[in-house]
Amino acid sequence: MSQATNTSVPPAATAAAAPNASKKSKKSKDNFQLKTPKGTKDWSGKDMILRESIFNSLSSLFKRHGGVTIDTPVFELTEILTGKYGEDSKLIYNLQDQGGELASLRYDLTVPFARFVAMNNVQNIKRYHIAKVYRRDQPAMTKGRMREFYQCDFDVAGQYDTMVPDSEILAILVEGLTGLGIKEFKIKINHRKVLDGIFKVCGVKDEDVRKISSAVDKLDKSPWEAVKKEMVEEKGQTEEVAEKIGSYVKLNGSISEMAEKLGADELLLSDPSAKEGIEEMKILAEYTAAFDIHQYLSFDLSLARGLDYYTGLIYEAVTDASKAPENAQELKKKASKKGDVEDASEYVGVGSIAAGGRYDNLVNMFASATGKKNVSIPCVGISFGVERIFSLMKARNDLMDKIRSNSTQVYIMAFGDGYLSERMKIAKELWANGIECEYLYKAKAKTRPQFTGAERSGAPVAVIIGKDEVASGKVRIKKLNQGEDADEGELVDLKDVATAVKSLLTKLNAGSSVDEIAAMIKGL
Amino acid sequence: MSQATNTSVPPAATAAAAPNASKKSKKSKDNFQLKTPKGTKDWSGKDMILRESIFNSLSSLFKRHGGVTIDTPVFELTEILTGKYGEDSKLIYNLQDQGGELASLRYDLTVPFARFVAMNNVQNIKRYHIAKVYRRDQPAMTKGRMREFYQCDFDVAGQYDTMVPDSEILAILVEGLTGLGIKEFKIKINHRKVLDGIFKVCGVKDEDVRKISSAVDKLDKSPWEAVKKEMVEEKGQTEEVAEKIGSYVKLNGSISEMAEKLGADELLLSDPSAKEGIEEMKILAEYTAAFDIHQYLSFDLSLARGLDYYTGLIYEAVTDASKAPENAQELKKKASKKGDVEDASEYVGVGSIAAGGRYDNLVNMFASATGKKNVSIPCVGISFGVERIFSLMKARNDLMDKIRSNSTQVYIMAFGDGYLSERMKIAKELWANGIECEYLYKAKAKTRPQFTGAERSGAPVAVIIGKDEVASGKVRIKKLNQGEDADEGELVDLKDVATAVKSLLTKLNAGSSVDEIAAMIKGL
Repeated sequence: MSQATNTSVPPAATAAAAPNASKKSKKSKDNFQLKTPKGTKDWSGKDMILRESIFNSLSSLFKRHGGVTIDTPVFELTEILTGKYGEDSKLIYNLQDQGGELASLRYDLTVPFARFVAMNNVQNIKRYHIAKVYRRDQPAMTKGRMREFYQCDFDVAGQYDTMVPDSEILAILVEGLTGLGIKEFKIKINHRKVLDGIFKVCGVKDEDVRKISSAVDKLDKSPWEAVKKEMVEEKGQTEEVAEKIGSYVKLNGSISEMAEKLGADELLLSDPSAKEGIEEMKILAEYTAAFDIHQYLSFDLSLARGLDYYTGLIYEAVTDASKAPENAQELKKKASKKGDVEDASEYVGVGSIAAGGRYDNLVNMFASATGKKNVSIPCVGISFGVERIFSLMKARNDLMDKIRSNSTQVYIMAFGDGYLSERMKIAKELWANGIECEYLYKAKAKTRPQFTGAERSGAPVAVIIGKDEVASGKVRIKKLNQGEDADEGELVDLKDVATAVKSLLTKLNAGSSVDEIAAMIKGL
Repeated sequence: MSQATNTSVPPAATAAAAPNASKKSKKSKDNFQLKTPKGTKDWSGKDMILRESIFNSLSSLFKRHGGVTIDTPVFELTEILTGKYGEDSKLIYNLQDQGGELASLRYDLTVPFARFVAMNNVQNIKRYHIAKVYRRDQPAMTKGRMREFYQCDFDVAGQYDTMVPDSEILAILVEGLTGLGIKEFKIKINHRKVLDGIFKVCGVKDEDVRKISSAVDKLDKSPWEAVKKEMVEEKGQTEEVAEKIGSYVKLNGSISEMAEKLGADELLLSDPSAKEGIEEMKILAEYTAAFDIHQYLSFDLSLARGLDYYTGLIYEAVTDASKAPENAQELKKKASKKGDVEDASEYVGVGSIAAGGRYDNLVNMFASATGKKNVSIPCVGISFGVERIFSLMKARNDLMDKIRSNSTQVYIMAFGDGYLSERMKIAKELWANGIECEYLYKAKAKTRPQFTGAERSGAPVAVIIGKDEVASGKVRIKKLNQGEDADEGELVDLKDVATAVKSLLTKLNAGSSVDEIAAMIKGL
């Protein structure tokens, strides 16, 4: 119990602890619930390192594209969020009214970004933001939706030429996913102007466009017959209108192919907005070819995207179910056995892993609400679904096996009298030289617990002192975990300890865990 | 307005926008408040980079000492927080009761950590956590307290030998502050067992010890006479008891000096707990000498620390008012002029910048509440007051002048026909090689706006193409911002662009902004 190792969290503790603790608490006399709130969880150990690696990879990506980061408060005035999320507004978490302002936890990072841009009269910005958002979802047994989760967003605000930032966003999407070792995905794209034009030329009334759009949005999960039924029976369209819509939304293909087909459709071209959308898609075809990312793209008329605020290009990256990572099924089974349904559902290895679109009116809405007229700051952005990406990567055994949850490089040991002050002095010298090191927190440390401590720390190198070393002002530097290849190590002057350790670490090619993992992810 | 630069947030926008926007909103017909909630603010631009550098420096520090990081939810079940913060419990932010569990935003990172340790049966861990905490303080005009702010905590949990982790925590405190370029500080230390022993031998009843302790805690801001008056008139002690206490709490000096003095005090030694505390301080003297940090320490009997949960060593690092950074007064004046009182108060350049102590019963409290008996996981930790550290560093002109808010290294320009596709292809090649680059988001880009864009991006290098270059498959690579020293640059094959740019950047010693700043902070 007195090991100086960094941690001894049981491996399964983090994910499974909440339900278990909850069960236990029922037995307690105080009925005290030692758990995290519903839909939230603690992160620790290897999971934390993997998530940090993902964040590092994405923030480097965003910086490469000229991005700067901002940090907005975790809660906003409630009125800022009101009316932005349609039906899902009921999922907004409110703070208790304790006098003063009414505030709510942010639902996404997009609305706070638009508020920031409008409030500060920002004319243009490329901003990224990696932070938690909150939705009071009912974590369904089969869905595993969390109430607190991370989003990784990159958005470009400002008046630019048609499809220029949009195509870079798509390039960022491809670069981001492939940079995380995710190769098997496709990006569905569509254009709100084209889609809305289709509805109109098929005979849908203006006021029905949004609700027909959300019916179409279900085509990735439901067959056409079900969607058609919803349009006719619930959403008041005729059979004929529904069939006409069907003939369009079943279409997909490369951008140039689809743009050519739609560009020859006289009926569709009669809608000026649809015509404009088709022209924009032709421009997009050219730019995505320049970026050499057209092979990932599918112009798919069934993509509608739920949120109201999109006004132009929309997109969604999906992974291929048949190409789920090696041990996804195994992990899923394990998680189910533990009764850990939320975790089990994480390992589906399929679904939307990033999405976004153009929203040209959100900033203007905020600006005009405060009396500023004629402000036009168009925006386009992408949000990486980092929790799903995390699940995909966690399913890779090769990666998880390599991850260490700490960064300790050196374990300092003493044989004989404990020599705590001497161990402290060596540690101080190593820390001052930027080297991660630990030692057993015992005044009179015995041999065995020090070896156990060293092993648990995972450090590749030991610095060892004993009676002879202390007397002669030397230390012994030794590789750890060498098994058969173990040697006696090297005896160096105490004053040279940092230099000698550094050179051995370089030889062993030992780096920080996050760096190692980032390199490993990238290389695959 | 169509520059492809990363941002054009007006420099003063972030800090000052909330009150301004609030004023404007009164004129609006909708009376819409375009602001962040009271006591919160947006972070952006140079501030964001500086804060990231501080976080990087501290997390490297924590990792060097074997730390692993955890992430707990931003809100906890309300009952977890209840009864942990004494009078300050009224500052806890509650979430609205929307059915289900009652939850509250975390007040600090210590209580969630203890909950995590108890819930997961962690036997030992060195954990760090850099995250926001929430206090529904009234941001007073003179105090500048925020309702949302960051804490940077490192805590060691586990049964270890007396004062071994405690002394390392003090070493971390010194290493952390000096690593951030803060040299002028001292660390007041005291021991709860000694302090409580003093109160008892002076005649304070057991039940009065905590309230007399919080009176003593005011000695850093109030003169002894005021504190004495509070003890006698408000807290029911006799003149004599108060005077006796006074004779102790005025004492301070080096640990060994003080331990010797107190160790000869027969009255004090008659309290077994005080005697134990004095013995522990003698051990601490030895370890802090081994770490060579004793010169920063002052054993100060007037330090009491507000929180109830401390049980042993307590400490607080304070900066020296007379050594405030060069332009603190100037910044303060500027901020006041803008009516930005919260910001003005940040630049006081004095006060507590880190604090912590030993709390041996908090984990046990959670464990026993769920029916687990005889769990003993002692803890000791430190919290860096990163907002105050930020203010100290922001006051350093040398540092702020060097900070760039983006990381862009290359700006790609075309003269002649716009050549957007060609610029995109070059950008793709540079991104694929990890090089940060941007270009103007215009199809037919004119010369002047491209130069403006390049200048605003701050990129040190330009890649330039024109009719000749495109025809011959070449690009021109050129240093930017060279003034008189400007040259024609270098003509290289398009396929070698990434290699050539990298070698020029290495020659120019251009790195990412965060790295540069971290190095600069460290070197000073």
